[in-house]
Formats: sequence, C-alpha cells, structure tokens
Amino acid sequence: MIIDRLYEAVEARGPVCLGLDPTPELLPPGLLSAAGSPAEAYLRFNRAIVDATLDLVACYKVQIAHYEALGVEGMACYRDTLRYIRGRGALVIGDVKRGDIGSTAARYAVAHFEGDFEADFITVNPYFGTDAISPFLPYLERGKKGLFVLIRTSNPSAPELQGFPHLSRPSRFSCHASPVTRHPLYLRVAELVARWGEGFVGTCGYSAIGGVVGATAGDALAQVRRRFPSLFLLVPGYGAQGARGKDVAAAFRDGNGAVVAAARSLIGAHREKPDPERRFPDYAREAVEAMREDIRRWTR
Amino acid sequence: MIIDRLYEAVEARGPVCLGLDPTPELLPPGLLSAAGSPAEAYLRFNRAIVDATLDLVACYKVQIAHYEALGVEGMACYRDTLRYIRGRGALVIGDVKRGDIGSTAARYAVAHFEGDFEADFITVNPYFGTDAISPFLPYLERGKKGLFVLIRTSNPSAPELQGFPHLSRPSRFSCHASPVTRHPLYLRVAELVARWGEGFVGTCGYSAIGGVVGATAGDALAQVRRRFPSLFLLVPGYGAQGARGKDVAAAFRDGNGAVVAAARSLIGAHREKPDPERRFPDYAREAVEAMREDIRRWTR
Repeated sequence: MIIDRLYEAVEARGPVCLGLDPTPELLPPGLLSAAGSPAEAYLRFNRAIVDATLDLVACYKVQIAHYEALGVEGMACYRDTLRYIRGRGALVIGDVKRGDIGSTAARYAVAHFEGDFEADFITVNPYFGTDAISPFLPYLERGKKGLFVLIRTSNPSAPELQGFPHLSRPSRFSCHASPVTRHPLYLRVAELVARWGEGFVGTCGYSAIGGVVGATAGDALAQVRRRFPSLFLLVPGYGAQGARGKDVAAAFRDGNGAVVAAARSLIGAHREKPDPERRFPDYAREAVEAMREDIRRWTR
Repeated sequence: MIIDRLYEAVEARGPVCLGLDPTPELLPPGLLSAAGSPAEAYLRFNRAIVDATLDLVACYKVQIAHYEALGVEGMACYRDTLRYIRGRGALVIGDVKRGDIGSTAARYAVAHFEGDFEADFITVNPYFGTDAISPFLPYLERGKKGLFVLIRTSNPSAPELQGFPHLSRPSRFSCHASPVTRHPLYLRVAELVARWGEGFVGTCGYSAIGGVVGATAGDALAQVRRRFPSLFLLVPGYGAQGARGKDVAAAFRDGNGAVVAAARSLIGAHREKPDPERRFPDYAREAVEAMREDIRRWTR
C-alpha cells in the first residue's frame, strides 16, 4: 500500500515534505528572465530542486494554486512537475484540497488519481462530509493512492470554523460540563477521518487516509495524535508560517507517522545569498538538511 | 457592481443558473465520436447550449472538476468555455470551491479572477475561515468580481460537518436550553459570510459575497434567507438532485436574491429523445423554460 511506501520513506530519509510552490517572487530573478515563460521557469526550478533533494525528503507536495495562477500553461507545468517527481521514483502529494458533492468528487478522483495530474496522494476538504471522500476509495482499495483530509489547518483564522463551537469561557453557572465545549469541529473531523480510514490500514499500522493538522495550532497536534494513533499526519506550518522542530514533535510516534511540509523556507533559501541563479539547488538542499536535523532533535 | 448585473439578469430573464458540467456519459454519443477529443466535444457542446439559452438564464456555472478530469486539454476547454460565455455578454460562475491559507488563496485569486480562467464569480470553501476570503477582496472592491461561499451544501452527507454539533435529541434533564443546539455550523458560516460581505452591498441591496445553500437541505434555505436578507444565494440541488420549484421558493425575496443551479437535468435533457446529436440545444432550451416556469409559479 502507498502508505507503507510513505512510512518507509520517512524511515529511510526523514519526515521532510518539500513543497514545490513557486511564485514569481520566490524564483531567482535570472532564472525567470532566462526562461521563455514563468511556467517554463517553474519547471526548470522544480526539476533542479528535486534533483538536489531526492535523498533527503520523504516526499514532495505540489500546491496546485501556484500553477493554476499561470493558466493552461501552468497546468502543463503542474503535470510535468508531478511526472518528473514520480519518474524519479519519489512520492508526491497533489495539494489540491478539492471537496464537492459525490458526482463531482468522482470527477476530481479521475482528475487527480489518473491522467495528466496523477499524484500518489491528494489533499481533500471535508466540508461536504462522506460524499466528498467516497469516490476516491476505489483508488485506495487498489492500494495505489492515499488521501490527506484537512482536520486543523495552520492559518490564523482556522479556529473560526474548525474550533466551532467556541465558548469563550466555561460558564461558572452551568449545571453540568457540556461535552460540546470539549469537542470542537476539528475533533469531529478527525473522528470521521479515522473512521473513513479504518479499511485502509497498511502493514506499517497507519491508514492511507491521513489528516492535515497544522503545527501552529497549539495542542491540536498532540490531541489528534493521542486520540487517533493510526492517523498518518501531514503537518504544515513549519518555516515561513512560524513552527519549528519542537512544535511538530507531537505529531510523531517513534519518529514516524507524520511528514512535515515546508515550501517557502526551503525553495526560497537562496534569497539574499550569493549567486542564487546557479546555487539555488544547493541552498534548498542545505535548508532541507537543517530542517531535517531540527526535527530529528525533537523526535528521536 | 457585479452583483447588480446578476440582480438585473434575474429581473430580466429569471433565476436559472445553467450548469455546464459535461461528462462523457452526458454528451450525445455522436457528438463525442465526431470530435477529435472529449475536450473538443465538450467545447462544441457548451457553445451550442449557451447559444440556445442566452435569453433564458441569469448566468452560467461551470464546474471545473469536469474539465480537470480531462487534464491539460480539459483546462484549455474550461478557459475557452468561460471566454465564450463572457464574450457573449453573459455572467459566469467558476464553480471551483477553492479554499486555502492566505498566501495560497492569493494565487487562487489570480488564477480565477485574472488570466486564462477568469470568471465573474467563483465559489469558495469556508473551512479556513477569513484567511481564505481576504485575498479575493481587492477584486471585489473594484466592483468587478463576486464570491459565493459554501454555507449548506445539497449533498446527503452535508450535515456531518455543516450541521455540527448535532445533539440527536435535547436532553430532558438539561437545566437550560443550550444556545449551541440551535446554532449549527452552517449558521455560523452564514454569519461570517454576511459579515465579510458588509462592505460589498450593491444598489440592488445584495452583497457581492453571496452564499451557497442547497434546496435539498430542509429548512436551511428559509432559515438563512430570513436571517440574512442581503445575502444573494446560489441554490444547488434542483433537478437531478431532487429539488423542485416549491423547494427553492424560500430562497427568494420578491422573485430575486437567488439563482437556482441545475446541470444534468438541463444539459442532459436530450437523453432518450429523438435525434439528440442535432437537437440537444433545443431540448436543453425546453428544459430551461420548464425549470424557469416551475420556479416562477412558486415565487411570483
């Protein structure tokens, strides 16, 4: 099963999930001007980063928004980036966060588990409930694909819905402790994700349906890890969003069971360094090594 | 403002929002085999449907999943479909349901409000909270664009999260009525959407930030309409998903303030009819007329 491959990758190379999320501002200026188009520059950039980091990362994550922003040509670059990664034998998460009614989710499954945009894992949004997940399951049953469902995201406004219902403080006058106050939406989502994943647990002990829990979300990570031991976690928030090794440590069990995603802090490591056009892959490699070491200090 | 254009379109032509969601199964078989590729068939199909219905609909809605499923070529067809609709002077909703952290949402804003995939409105997912909405607001401030945020979707499993927290029945022993039991997540989302939209109310009295509320969701539609009078509603669930004119009536105030989306029941109206390859645009036109009349009976 694909989740066993991811588990083995973490065992062999550590838990860094390198985000290939290029923007015009993040590329070395000379690279952008030398290429015929931004999409071409992105592809060259991505290939060089992948070549420089293959032996250091568990997997790659490609955020489709950055490619959609370049239109049809950007989508060709997204396709080519995924193909390149998979062609090198590495695992890739298509960070697409799709979510829709069943008949539409079925088309998203075709889009992202077959054909041009085929990834090994994709991220999905749980807002529609089970209907948004079911159409992906036939692909999981064949053992080839996996999902990461958003549980608790890493952004500042995440609690607005994911922490619902909020009671700003427990009432001193309530006659019994409400179960609701201790059970925000994201824990309900985590429960659903764990249930959806029950039939897809690999030999490694984790399910091919994992969850996304941000490292910037206080004790959410520890809470989800403790309650749902077979949930493999994709942990965003490291680096540019502020989290460090100690903040992601709670995601792990014996150094596995999670990958930690970072993009800007790794692929943008060349900024304000000498000769970025030529040396950006080395800077990315160094940044990945430092991140890996920072996490290892807190998890082994 | 764009919401005034949509309001005027409903006044002039009624509230049908025609969904251009082709699938290989939904196209007249001869059309698919005559075209060089499915994407080419989709584009021919869409153009003919648009030509046949321009004077009958408020707007079109294009569900991007169906195009993503055809890969890069499908994305070119998505681009060309949007361009064709806008080139004919009609309004189009890009049904993309994107949602992500701020820096990523900013790229989705570029992707769907500029360039190849430019739409007049797009649908967005609220799971990330305000951060997922803010990057779109500069486009709204210029008056040219609008959003529809998912509030209560039309699919069977929608209540799993959107109805959270569920208490299966009120406890006979609770010492006070819990405010939480009367306030499911989707009403919290509706409140947020109404607040986000406050600065974007057009002369028609509705905001350029509207909401998606399904017609299959019991009294959710009436509830949201009553509490949030300036929320323009995009109402899915009509037709193939089971809702009829009487089910969508609650979305309207004086025959406006909402558009009702249907796809399969309209663009697939040619199925099991004579000569579908030649006459599918006529069948779609008839189906739109019947839907428009069905809704009118309950709203005027």
